[in-house]
Amino acid sequence: MRQVIYPGTFDPITKGHWDIIKRAASIFDRVVVAIALSREKRPLFELETRIEMARRATEGLENVEVKGFDTLLVHFCQQEGAKIIIRGLRAVSDFEYELQMGYANQSLDPEIETLYLMPSLENAFISSSVVRTILSFGGDVSHLVPPPVLPLLRTIRDVPRH
Amino acid sequence: MRQVIYPGTFDPITKGHWDIIKRAASIFDRVVVAIALSREKRPLFELETRIEMARRATEGLENVEVKGFDTLLVHFCQQEGAKIIIRGLRAVSDFEYELQMGYANQSLDPEIETLYLMPSLENAFISSSVVRTILSFGGDVSHLVPPPVLPLLRTIRDVPRH
Amino acid sequence: MRQVIYPGTFDPITKGHWDIIKRAASIFDRVVVAIALSREKRPLFELETRIEMARRATEGLENVEVKGFDTLLVHFCQQEGAKIIIRGLRAVSDFEYELQMGYANQSLDPEIETLYLMPSLENAFISSSVVRTILSFGGDVSHLVPPPVLPLLRTIRDVPRH
Amino acid sequence: MRQVIYPGTFDPITKGHWDIIKRAASIFDRVVVAIALSREKRPLFELETRIEMARRATEGLENVEVKGFDTLLVHFCQQEGAKIIIRGLRAVSDFEYELQMGYANQSLDPEIETLYLMPSLENAFISSSVVRTILSFGGDVSHLVPPPVLPLLRTIRDVPRH
Amino acid sequence: MRQVIYPGTFDPITKGHWDIIKRAASIFDRVVVAIALSREKRPLFELETRIEMARRATEGLENVEVKGFDTLLVHFCQQEGAKIIIRGLRAVSDFEYELQMGYANQSLDPEIETLYLMPSLENAFISSSVVRTILSFGGDVSHLVPPPVLPLLRTIRDVPRH
Amino acid sequence: MRQVIYPGTFDPITKGHWDIIKRAASIFDRVVVAIALSREKRPLFELETRIEMARRATEGLENVEVKGFDTLLVHFCQQEGAKIIIRGLRAVSDFEYELQMGYANQSLDPEIETLYLMPSLENAFISSSVVRTILSFGGDVSHLVPPPVLPLLRTIRDVPRH
Repeated sequence: MRQVIYPGTFDPITKGHWDIIKRAASIFDRVVVAIALSREKRPLFELETRIEMARRATEGLENVEVKGFDTLLVHFCQQEGAKIIIRGLRAVSDFEYELQMGYANQSLDPEIETLYLMPSLENAFISSSVVRTILSFGGDVSHLVPPPVLPLLRTIRDVPRH
Repeated sequence: MRQVIYPGTFDPITKGHWDIIKRAASIFDRVVVAIALSREKRPLFELETRIEMARRATEGLENVEVKGFDTLLVHFCQQEGAKIIIRGLRAVSDFEYELQMGYANQSLDPEIETLYLMPSLENAFISSSVVRTILSFGGDVSHLVPPPVLPLLRTIRDVPRH
Repeated sequence: MRQVIYPGTFDPITKGHWDIIKRAASIFDRVVVAIALSREKRPLFELETRIEMARRATEGLENVEVKGFDTLLVHFCQQEGAKIIIRGLRAVSDFEYELQMGYANQSLDPEIETLYLMPSLENAFISSSVVRTILSFGGDVSHLVPPPVLPLLRTIRDVPRH
Repeated sequence: MRQVIYPGTFDPITKGHWDIIKRAASIFDRVVVAIALSREKRPLFELETRIEMARRATEGLENVEVKGFDTLLVHFCQQEGAKIIIRGLRAVSDFEYELQMGYANQSLDPEIETLYLMPSLENAFISSSVVRTILSFGGDVSHLVPPPVLPLLRTIRDVPRH
Repeated sequence: MRQVIYPGTFDPITKGHWDIIKRAASIFDRVVVAIALSREKRPLFELETRIEMARRATEGLENVEVKGFDTLLVHFCQQEGAKIIIRGLRAVSDFEYELQMGYANQSLDPEIETLYLMPSLENAFISSSVVRTILSFGGDVSHLVPPPVLPLLRTIRDVPRH
Repeated sequence: MRQVIYPGTFDPITKGHWDIIKRAASIFDRVVVAIALSREKRPLFELETRIEMARRATEGLENVEVKGFDTLLVHFCQQEGAKIIIRGLRAVSDFEYELQMGYANQSLDPEIETLYLMPSLENAFISSSVVRTILSFGGDVSHLVPPPVLPLLRTIRDVPRH
């Protein structure tokens, strides 16, 4: 069984993430969406909320599972018995960061492979940071996140400006 | 009448900004320099100071106006009745960020168009962040900011190191 | 009257070009689509065909005119009495080439200004070279070029492989 | 059965290509190395030689097959009944070209997915064009191509300078 | 005597830094590793620790000296009587930042020249930030930093997550 | 004695090249401007003319010598007994190409080091290809090439369009 890990902060999950997940799920037997605690990034949403958002967003996809983690990514992969990491590539700056992290992970566990997908065109500009910026001014993000996530966004009262 | 919005944090306004403003003012009927509060970036200068700096820097340019704002950029454009945003492009990283923001803005208001200008060569390396770094060590920035801005820089006593 | 020049080889004109033209036409008083002979690039289509294609593609746009040229771009601008060049930006490699050409043009005529637009997302991957590659294998390009251009593509018998 | 297509000109196959093939072969059930005729690139080696080189280079890998093709890549994928294209990413310029081609292929057949791998670090600078340049001056390429390919390189008498 | 300054935060010094230092030391008469206080970056290690790490890492290199500084880089160069700055280039984002800082430094002292080296391939992905991330999860960094630095890393008790 | 090789096609030598040469000559004991025959690039000017142009352009610089070569660059360096290659970096695409060539050269001779300089700002957009394009239309290039080169440009009668 080929299982893959799709790691990130998902703060919050976007249609861009969802697009990558759906396509990975059609290629591989099992996709684990791995949500990093990322304490140092001071995420807008709690880990539990981010996990709940990702679960609701991927509810129809049977071979997708959502988990939180707070270790090195390669250690999480080893725990899950997974050897393949999936990442989305949107822009050149993504590309360079991913290249560096890919080689760093490979230096820690040479058996781990990273595969990159590009999001479909209509999702290519969407990022969690764009969503947070719009949220901070009370703008509309319903075209940027999967519909089941919207109610969870609204429960946030005091969105700090990002 | 074709009016354009030139948005940014302008912390502080540089000769690079001034160069873009002057050229936009020669092409369009009215240029609004729109200074974002940008609370989350913790600007070195207060919004009022940044507005005053931009006003002094653009004093000779009759069709230029300076305004502060603290909303989504597309909402500010709608308030002003402007459909064109002007942005400067200096480097590849600028380019990608602008591309992402341009598409994000277009997703919020499809009527808004973004036009990009490149600064003249001698201003191509200047950024507010370079100016703040030099200021933080008490270095000379008189070749990097418009002359009328200099007195306002000097009134700052304790410049934190950036 | 603000007129702008939109130069290129247009071999052939694509939906990406058309997108830029339409948006420039909504901002400026007059848009001249300036098709370079570009002999050294050995274009697939003759200059006359490329001009005809661009004319058909832009037929509904009243303030758009199509012209061929075989001089330095700045000289063409001077002949037309135009001071603004419009260019589309799709990718980082475009950006760097455009930057270099923009500064080169400015060194030849400091009064000429270049403004950059980004194509709408769904056209962001289209290039004349992608169209020529698909044509060379007899593939379908009807989603990549403006519909009135299609009959002119079909009259070409022996499309060399590109 | 998950089969993938790894397309290219392979003029000649390098250790960088071999590295991607070996890793794809460990992830997927079947890898088809698809060598394009690429007449318009005027390859240094005949298609038959390039196929033979790739066959010798991949001899130990049981789920790898080498085939030539002279159609649009998406048509070749359809013939093979494959829905996944594998590509290597080395540099930013690769990345942008791949992005454009990936979206172009998706516009021709939305079911086809492209996955990107990065070569291992020690192969990250190797390209067929570097190999051809060194060959053209009679330099040593034995560290850049898989060993079984070397005898086929030597049979070339008049290597034009590239 | 040709002396060069190699500035940075070195938080902590990596094998990538060491690689650049060793090669600079083989080309120039004297190399000063100049460690910036960088208060605003909130470094993980104190300046004194970073200096000690760099001293231990470069112990065998006779023409290398390590110094801390807390001024503008060009002022530090003037104090040392050095006219050449050495910098490592790893990625496109490095390149653009370096270009901007190089021109900024040149605007402050036109006599100062910056020379760029690329790290050897096996060190090309290593950065202090990758090391800090792995450290924060208690992972192994012994392949990423010069061996004499390891004991100093271990003395840190509460590594904040980065 | 520290000598460096500055290789290129120099078709023709520009103020950008001259800028790099002058600065390298102020840092190192001897600079060899190494002009590649580059037959496969079909240069506009003969090797002899390119050598003559570079000699005239660098006449005042006593520690600069101009030589032609038609071998692998690393072999030329070995012949000259030089271990340092100097290259100019202007743009991201330069950077990636240089990175690849630098690692390729290092794989052929690990003792050879490459150092990169950035041209001064006012020369950052100049390339031989921009000069050839302007020449092909009979435009003015006197601000782009060193003055002593101008008479040699004029003797060319039929400049093909590039």
